[in-house]
Amino acid sequence: MTQAIPDSPTTRPLLRLAKGRSKRLRAGHPWVFSNEIEMTPEAKALPPGSLVTLVDAGDEKLGVATFNPHSLIAARVLSRRAADTVDADFLAARLGAAVALRDTLFDAPYYRLIHSEADQLPGLIVDRYGDVLAVQTNTAGMERLLPDLTAAFAQVLAPKAVVLINDSPVRKLEGLELDHRVLSGEITGPVELVENGCRFVADLADGQKTGWFFDQRDNRAFMARLAKGRRVLDVYTYAGGFAIAAAMAGAAETIAVDRSEQSLDLAKRAAALNGVTVETVRAEAFAELERLAAAGERFGVVITDPPAFVKSKKDLGAGAKGYRKMARLAAALVEPGGFLFCASCSHHMPAEQFAEEISHGIHLAGRSGRILRLAGAAPDHPLHPLLPESAYLKSMVLQLD
Amino acid sequence: MTQAIPDSPTTRPLLRLAKGRSKRLRAGHPWVFSNEIEMTPEAKALPPGSLVTLVDAGDEKLGVATFNPHSLIAARVLSRRAADTVDADFLAARLGAAVALRDTLFDAPYYRLIHSEADQLPGLIVDRYGDVLAVQTNTAGMERLLPDLTAAFAQVLAPKAVVLINDSPVRKLEGLELDHRVLSGEITGPVELVENGCRFVADLADGQKTGWFFDQRDNRAFMARLAKGRRVLDVYTYAGGFAIAAAMAGAAETIAVDRSEQSLDLAKRAAALNGVTVETVRAEAFAELERLAAAGERFGVVITDPPAFVKSKKDLGAGAKGYRKMARLAAALVEPGGFLFCASCSHHMPAEQFAEEISHGIHLAGRSGRILRLAGAAPDHPLHPLLPESAYLKSMVLQLD
Repeated sequence: MTQAIPDSPTTRPLLRLAKGRSKRLRAGHPWVFSNEIEMTPEAKALPPGSLVTLVDAGDEKLGVATFNPHSLIAARVLSRRAADTVDADFLAARLGAAVALRDTLFDAPYYRLIHSEADQLPGLIVDRYGDVLAVQTNTAGMERLLPDLTAAFAQVLAPKAVVLINDSPVRKLEGLELDHRVLSGEITGPVELVENGCRFVADLADGQKTGWFFDQRDNRAFMARLAKGRRVLDVYTYAGGFAIAAAMAGAAETIAVDRSEQSLDLAKRAAALNGVTVETVRAEAFAELERLAAAGERFGVVITDPPAFVKSKKDLGAGAKGYRKMARLAAALVEPGGFLFCASCSHHMPAEQFAEEISHGIHLAGRSGRILRLAGAAPDHPLHPLLPESAYLKSMVLQLD
Repeated sequence: MTQAIPDSPTTRPLLRLAKGRSKRLRAGHPWVFSNEIEMTPEAKALPPGSLVTLVDAGDEKLGVATFNPHSLIAARVLSRRAADTVDADFLAARLGAAVALRDTLFDAPYYRLIHSEADQLPGLIVDRYGDVLAVQTNTAGMERLLPDLTAAFAQVLAPKAVVLINDSPVRKLEGLELDHRVLSGEITGPVELVENGCRFVADLADGQKTGWFFDQRDNRAFMARLAKGRRVLDVYTYAGGFAIAAAMAGAAETIAVDRSEQSLDLAKRAAALNGVTVETVRAEAFAELERLAAAGERFGVVITDPPAFVKSKKDLGAGAKGYRKMARLAAALVEPGGFLFCASCSHHMPAEQFAEEISHGIHLAGRSGRILRLAGAAPDHPLHPLLPESAYLKSMVLQLD
């Protein structure tokens, strides 16, 4: 572990905004773009991730931010008070507020603890599994604050282990390498978590896995209610999230599909922990949906929660068709009066277009119905009010005729 | 009560779509606009609300619809099967499917039972209060079907009373008068309902009242969780929906504000039924928010669920400013770390703009925070997949710093 780099509001470098370019920042936006600052040789020479005091053209101090001269989002605001010192205590206060909010929202300590800008820690993602933390530092600024962050974690939560899960491709925009390792403490096998009264297991140490997707918590609860007494199909089950919640709620039969044997192993372990039966099928989702339709199978509930089909803007056309096809294939398996869940975690897929593609897919399957629920991520994934575009998760629940 | 007008698929008038104008209908859309049909003298002469068989320019039958020659939305599809006979049995089947869905979603028989197009009964709204039904027929077609509808209600639910609450201004577009009366059975005073385990009273017989707003069910549950141990202010409380849910969840103190003494009486009766204490204040919302701020009052939770500020497109500018001001005044009363709920039931207020106005208002109050929840109406208010614009309810929950 590298040493913390001491911060001081009096000696911290100044980063000057160009004349007339401070309006958005003053309106509460947490970012400054590279074309909005005076990119002097001194600024350019600052190490990526340095803490800076933002000043306007008239030298008014506007706050403290992390700065990366090589990123389009050049500065990300940590505090509107330039006099704040950004150290372990500062970060511990932010963590403490985030813990207090989650403990108001949930009964058990399993949740997304820090959701970047919305929790006033831009670039930082922390998922909490009781006394184990899974951390992503997606900006050079957060990367440089890791030693102080580690101290803050110890101060607020005294975790048994902290795992760095720096697998996100957004790190490239910040000039950072991928990095998946245990940062402190020790991990012996998958960790357990509790969600909506169901027990699950997440594998944080395996570089192929990204842990648990807490964002679907409320959707899993909603679908579980519909699953009671019905035959349920959960494609893209991953660690069994929807499938086990459905089985626990009294589904007549639950089939969980995933292409990965390791994911299905997690689902099987979770089923055993909860004492429920889930049939696991290793298969590609679209192929399995087609096979089941050809075999005349029907389900009271079909759940499709795929990985992102639209990984970048240029994928939008193909990805949109993917969601349409997914809805078409899944709708064909829903019995009359049954329910269909479709989701997209693609940041680049607009919510309105997602809804249109799903509706189109259902029509192509010759089905009609009604939308019961349109929802984003659970409330431990808050949004910054001026970054509505960061709402990546879209989901839709329909009843089909 | 007028007699039912018998329908027969063989003798029903044909309504012909203009050449090339059937595409949207075939894609699943439930409406035909007046410029898409052959407005022959025969068509024009049909009584408003008549049942018709829709045919395309090539005489292919596309379904059965209600028709109003004087409305921009000329025809509304009841069934894609032109051979269906629209009678009490047909309507009873639709009602039965809607009851089955709600009984899957909820534990008790208090909910929106029919939500127009999404429940395949365009123009019809039915709210269920146990064995009392509150009915709106907002099209000439549904108005003409009232005798069959009444028979269908009796067949499926055997209600003790049915109340017509035809107060909606949209009736004017269909050439219908306002009409608020007991249609069958008897109502003696306000009816009781249960929502999220709380008891409430709704006044259906009073022409000034519109009953209960079931659409906020999930939001009330969400806010109640946040209210525990906090001081709660509920402006525009109406019949006490949010206030009593908060008090039941363990709010430290609950103040409910409304301009109407009759509404506050309903809230008081509900508080007594649940054995909780709610302080009621009769006042205009904005004035009371300003008075409380001037008095230095602060709350852990502030709830603002106003009537529609944007009643028509031309009101959008003024209405948008109204939501901004509401958020600004309410945000000033939220203690640091506390929560703010804002809603708009204005059909003409776009969701994105609503979110922007609320965020702007909070900034004008000098506050920052995070959005925890963006939600529409509860799932007993489903949406037709091709009428996403019918999603009138917007709501936002924020935590403020």
